[in-house]
Amino acid sequence: MTVLGYWPAEALGLWVQKVFETMGCSEEHAAIAAEVLLEADLKGIDSHGVARLPGYVRLWRKGRINAQPQWRWEQRLPAVAVLDADAGLGLVAARVAMDRAIEMAAVYGTAQVLVRNSNHFGIAAEHALRAVPHRMVGWAMTNASPLVAPYGSSERLLGTNPLCYAIPAGNRKPLVMDMATSAAANGKLELAASRNQAIPEGWAVDAQGLPSTDPLILQKGGALLPLGSDPEGAVHKGYGLGALVDWWSGVLSGASFGPWVPPFVDFLEPAPDQPGLGLGHALGATAIEAFLPIEEYNQRVEQWAERILQAQPAPGHPPLVLHGMPEWSTRAHRLQEGIPFTEAQKRPLHQLAQELGLDTPHENTTSLR
Amino acid sequence: MTVLGYWPAEALGLWVQKVFETMGCSEEHAAIAAEVLLEADLKGIDSHGVARLPGYVRLWRKGRINAQPQWRWEQRLPAVAVLDADAGLGLVAARVAMDRAIEMAAVYGTAQVLVRNSNHFGIAAEHALRAVPHRMVGWAMTNASPLVAPYGSSERLLGTNPLCYAIPAGNRKPLVMDMATSAAANGKLELAASRNQAIPEGWAVDAQGLPSTDPLILQKGGALLPLGSDPEGAVHKGYGLGALVDWWSGVLSGASFGPWVPPFVDFLEPAPDQPGLGLGHALGATAIEAFLPIEEYNQRVEQWAERILQAQPAPGHPPLVLHGMPEWSTRAHRLQEGIPFTEAQKRPLHQLAQELGLDTPHENTTSLR
Repeated sequence: MTVLGYWPAEALGLWVQKVFETMGCSEEHAAIAAEVLLEADLKGIDSHGVARLPGYVRLWRKGRINAQPQWRWEQRLPAVAVLDADAGLGLVAARVAMDRAIEMAAVYGTAQVLVRNSNHFGIAAEHALRAVPHRMVGWAMTNASPLVAPYGSSERLLGTNPLCYAIPAGNRKPLVMDMATSAAANGKLELAASRNQAIPEGWAVDAQGLPSTDPLILQKGGALLPLGSDPEGAVHKGYGLGALVDWWSGVLSGASFGPWVPPFVDFLEPAPDQPGLGLGHALGATAIEAFLPIEEYNQRVEQWAERILQAQPAPGHPPLVLHGMPEWSTRAHRLQEGIPFTEAQKRPLHQLAQELGLDTPHENTTSLR
Repeated sequence: MTVLGYWPAEALGLWVQKVFETMGCSEEHAAIAAEVLLEADLKGIDSHGVARLPGYVRLWRKGRINAQPQWRWEQRLPAVAVLDADAGLGLVAARVAMDRAIEMAAVYGTAQVLVRNSNHFGIAAEHALRAVPHRMVGWAMTNASPLVAPYGSSERLLGTNPLCYAIPAGNRKPLVMDMATSAAANGKLELAASRNQAIPEGWAVDAQGLPSTDPLILQKGGALLPLGSDPEGAVHKGYGLGALVDWWSGVLSGASFGPWVPPFVDFLEPAPDQPGLGLGHALGATAIEAFLPIEEYNQRVEQWAERILQAQPAPGHPPLVLHGMPEWSTRAHRLQEGIPFTEAQKRPLHQLAQELGLDTPHENTTSLR
């Protein structure tokens, strides 16, 4: 996987925005969608960044993403709301929903907004982190197309259903617990396949629901396993977390849920008899200062973080890290040097540019640093 | 482990209540504490039920549990509050906090109450489930004395820090996702030790932080591992969940946190220089009807539950169950037949009765069924 060059972050963001505008999104929506995708690339989560852009365009061409949605809000009680995203971009709907949750949490102390009739929302962290500058913890969950079989079943009943919490940490970068509720993400299987390596037991099962170490097993009707992998590893906990995310994002919001969640890929049609509208998300925020004065809180969270970082490593192990630290470090690098890309990452974007009659994204042949 | 007899549930509950009253608890507090402990036994979670009663009494004798606490409430915003439990029983403080969260959620749609200066609160499910009759999802988390080493460290930095969500499920029993954030609970190691069996890799590490299969490793300075067990199993997720529970229950509430959380056993003193007050809990509730009319919700959650239950099992596997189903089934049996006990379970309660000058709990020699 040779790096061919670097996309300067700002230029890439503007190019992505132009793609969304070409789809018919408003300038405001296109800018938000571009920002959310770009954040994934900046943090090194390449599978969820501009690599997904052609997928969004294909779904729009199929009429499954609405570039000019009419948001519809429902609010029955003061600190909670539902946003019907009218099949618009989840990247934007989740942002808008989170910002509304933050507004309400500032008044009531905690608030939640659920989203139905949406699409993939990008990385959960980008939404959850909106809360942190407001001195709040933020969270974001989404259901996703079915890819996970609860242990002991042969059926894909749940998505990788991620949940993320972003926590203010005083003078430190925010803590970010952002996790799929499966044992491994799809991208790890793809990486193993590209290297012709078997995958560890505990990541996936075959079409019958039995353990498999084949990295291509998902293309053969297999499924991912929940976090925990097997009964010894307490796989019922990962199954429970995945079900919880599906329940909150899907069942409670009015979105589709479980095995009915519409696929992200355009070549698979949504199952008939949908039980709800599109994908669902659950976002929320809770104000730190509702519980402690901010100075006292900052001192406490810093003490907690530093104690963990100072822990004695086991022989042969590096010191512990806090959640989010590796991604913050990658982000600082990539803001400086640009976002590195390979031939496999460049080709689909150039093809997209050609299809839409746009210039290709600006690139540098070497790192800017 | 021969069953010696059965304690009828109601009689056992009244006996436990009498023990708490002998400690000096009010009748109301004693009844709540007894109810919370008894629920654990009814559901088959014997490690968290009346087996812990002598532990509470020992902590009270040491002056570390206050039988007559003065609750102190802090409320800065409408939908959130903090309860300082004045070193009282967590069994009672968490109940009172949860009921306050439910009251606020009925008005605002969602609410949270944090508890500081508390003690062990029993099984999380008993608190979370309070929300369900009010047509709400309820949740309960608590930090706990340090017993878990994040993978790659030799230090016990976190407790088994459970989190629980209880979800209304229409015409079905509530769904209950109740899980320690460690790969295995302490009780599983004790069971393996009693059978002279090695434990699986991935449950625990030795005092250096290296993998161990010794069921007695916790007595030798070892530690439990977080859910996920190792990097292949995504142990950073279990570490993140354990840290999240500690942050919410401890750092944010004003309680102690991380390696400083006071031990439940009376023969270990709390670490000096405590960063906060006692154990902490985080409880909350969200009203279903803030999002969907209840009839529509019930239809959706039943469809979701039934789809999962109808999934095709993998060869050699039983059908899937939903979270909470095994415990509801045990509870129905034990309400009828009484709570079975062994010599090892009976002895400490009889000793406690003698110490306190009480009768021993009423027992039947055979099942009532």
